[in-house]
This record gives sequence, structure tokens and C-alpha cells, in this order.
Amino acid sequence: MLKLDVALTPRLYSLYEHPDSIVVAIDILRATTAICTAFEHGVSEMIPVASLDEAWDYKKKGYLLGAERNGEKIEGADFGNSPYDYMGDHLKGKTTVITTTNGTRAIEMAKSSHQVIIGSFVNIDAIVEYLIQQNRNVVLLCAGWKEKFNLEDSMFAGAVVNRLADIDLFEDVSDAALNARYLYMSAMEDPFKFLRNSSHRKRMQKLNLKEDIRYCLNPEPSQIIPVLKEGSLVQLSR
Amino acid sequence: MLKLDVALTPRLYSLYEHPDSIVVAIDILRATTAICTAFEHGVSEMIPVASLDEAWDYKKKGYLLGAERNGEKIEGADFGNSPYDYMGDHLKGKTTVITTTNGTRAIEMAKSSHQVIIGSFVNIDAIVEYLIQQNRNVVLLCAGWKEKFNLEDSMFAGAVVNRLADIDLFEDVSDAALNARYLYMSAMEDPFKFLRNSSHRKRMQKLNLKEDIRYCLNPEPSQIIPVLKEGSLVQLSR
Repeated sequence: MLKLDVALTPRLYSLYEHPDSIVVAIDILRATTAICTAFEHGVSEMIPVASLDEAWDYKKKGYLLGAERNGEKIEGADFGNSPYDYMGDHLKGKTTVITTTNGTRAIEMAKSSHQVIIGSFVNIDAIVEYLIQQNRNVVLLCAGWKEKFNLEDSMFAGAVVNRLADIDLFEDVSDAALNARYLYMSAMEDPFKFLRNSSHRKRMQKLNLKEDIRYCLNPEPSQIIPVLKEGSLVQLSR
Repeated sequence: MLKLDVALTPRLYSLYEHPDSIVVAIDILRATTAICTAFEHGVSEMIPVASLDEAWDYKKKGYLLGAERNGEKIEGADFGNSPYDYMGDHLKGKTTVITTTNGTRAIEMAKSSHQVIIGSFVNIDAIVEYLIQQNRNVVLLCAGWKEKFNLEDSMFAGAVVNRLADIDLFEDVSDAALNARYLYMSAMEDPFKFLRNSSHRKRMQKLNLKEDIRYCLNPEPSQIIPVLKEGSLVQLSR
């Protein structure tokens, strides 16, 4: 009996953790959107690290570093976590390092599962198609905000659940997955408006990131799925 | 700036815990519905205990005991956690003890807050009115199912949020509270149908508890708010 679960925040992930599951790491505003965007623009490898100390060690060794905390780019890093930082040709064929407030921690947390893939509205079609092919238990892991629930990650999880729930592949769709699906159905007509009152939108409004939010909710699509392999994100070969 | 938060599962409660907050403990199917029903039918005091060992100690001392695990009444207890067990005159003026899989643990967990009150669709009107009067931060604590999210508790939390969110009392309504509200709005037309696919409904269908569920979602109303005082639930005097 295949299970479709949603960890609504990282703090709930251990309740769903299983070595045989595929985990989709989700941090819509903005880490996983930025990562998917980077791969579409030709980055060859991204090393996700949870701590800033580790990130600076890589930077000293000569790696390009994307680093964000509390919505802002860390001074001295090459990029923040805006998807716009990862567009263009400047990353083609390169290996970069990325650390963010929530997203990279979620990726780190899930590393002992069967597989960790990176999801966002950039590659949602590819993610859904891949999950249908794999015939495995799935955990959609919402990065949230400092362990708390946030609307945008669960809404994205709900968009995935919405496409998977009716195809009779998953017999066990958890209450958390149903919740995410209801949330998506409430949001789907106008996600931007839906998030207007969300905590992260408020945080990002202060930082003047309206364009980023618009892109994260309605990006250029990509068929690439970043996957965690031996501590690095690379393009999943299918 | 007053905050309205929802702990979508007990595991998230510590993120919202504060000694100045009022906590509403919620276990719709069925502990908090049963407790509110018992007070409406004249019970004078209910001692919530988290462990069965503690419950048996009370039973040995002569207390009436309501005990449930995994949806079923514990053999040897006087009652389970069906609201129907607590109707009639047999509890009038009595002190009882109650232990359940999720609800009594949630009550226990919140005891260091300013106040713990017991919420269900039985007393939702009284709860909302009381919270408006108090002018304090509020945490709606969903008991969930073994630390996981469940639909029915969050839907009830959403019903409370829905009544509180638009009156300009709470300036900070968290994403988790907004999520609960969207869930309630998806459910409100037909909560029974809404819960048809929920995990707990499936569990309870096996136990043939359709009537219990119908009552929990559409009970006889009561103006009584049970409140935790020195380890016991008593009627809140207003």
C-alpha cells in the first residue's frame, strides 16, 4: 500500500521518515525555486550546506557561494537565494555552494531516505511524472519557516498531492496530505493573492521582493529534477 | 500585538508555548467533545491523566474512570471516550478521571500556560466569546493522532480562527492559523462528508462509531467551558 505523506514542517519529518521513501524538499520562497532555476540555467552541481561556517569553508576553497539568512543575502557571498541570481550563463558548468535559512536544512535532514529530490513550481510537472513512475512511498517535506508551518510550501505540496491523489497509485493519503490539497484548492485561482497575508510574504514585502515572489509562483518551467547524490545536488538522469 | 496561533499537532506546540497565553485543547473525535458533554450533564470535576498507570491508581481509590486507547474503551474502565458515555444524570456532581490516546496528553502538555480551556463544537460559541473578552494571546492546540496532524482538530481550530480573525483583535494571525481557517472553509458546508476520507474516520468506521462522529460534529450546544485548575478540569466561572 503506497503512502503519500506531507511533513507540514521539518519538525514533523521524523514521523514520516523511512529509508525507502522518496522525499521532495520544498522551500518555495525561495531556496528550492532558486536551485531548480540554477539547474535550468546550466549549473552542474550545487552543494547544499546547513551551516554558514561550512559555507565559508567552501568559499575559502574557491567555490561560488549562495547564502541567505532571514530573507537577506549574507554579506560576502556571491549570491543570495533569489532565483534571479541564478539565471543567465554565469553558472554554466560550475559547482556552487548554497546555504539558506530553511531549505538547505530540510535537504540535509532527509538525506538518509531512499532519494531526496528538489521541488518547486519550476519543475512540478517533471516531479509529478517522476513520482508516478517510481512506485514508492513519497514524503513531501515542507521547509517551513524556522520549524513553523508556512502557507507557500504546504500549498505547493498540495499542488503535487492534487495531481497524485486521484490516480489510484497511493492508497494511503495522510490527513496532512489532504490538508495540503485543500490549501492548494483554496489558493489555485490566485496564489499571489492567497499568500498576501502569509507570514513570509509580510517578511518579504519589507525586503521588497515582490518580483521574486511572482517568479516563484509562476516561473519558467524546467524538466530538470535536482537530486541529492553523495551530498551534492546534481541533475537526475532519467 | 495579540497573536492567534494554531499548533497543528502537539509536536509543534513548543514553538508557540508561552506562559501568558490561553491554550484551547482540541480533540474533536472524541476526548474534548466528551469532556464538554460531561460538564453539560453535570459532572463537577474531571481529572485528566496522560498515562494508564496513573488512571488505574485513581480507579483503585474509587474514582469513576473513562479510559480510551486507539479508539477503544479500555477493559475495566467505567467509560470510554464516547460523548454518549457522559450523558444523563449518572455523573451529576461527581468527580471522574479520564485518559485518552491524544486529548489528555495535549491538556497535560499545555499546563504551564496562563490557562488551558477545553474546546469542541459543543462549546464553540462560549469559547469564541470568552477569547474575545480576554484580550490575550491564544494558541489553539490540536491533539492530532499520535503527534501527527489530523483533519478534524485543525478544522475545528479553523472554525475558531474564522470567527476571531476578522474582528481586528488579533494582529498576528499565523500561517498555521490561516491554514486551519482555509481548511474549515473547505469543510463547513458538510463537515461529515469532508472527514469521510480522513485517517481517524477510517479508524472509527472500523469501530462502527458513525453516531459518535455525527454527534461530535453537530452536538447539543453548551455554554460551559471546562478549565484546568490545579490539575483538574472544572467549570470556568465567568
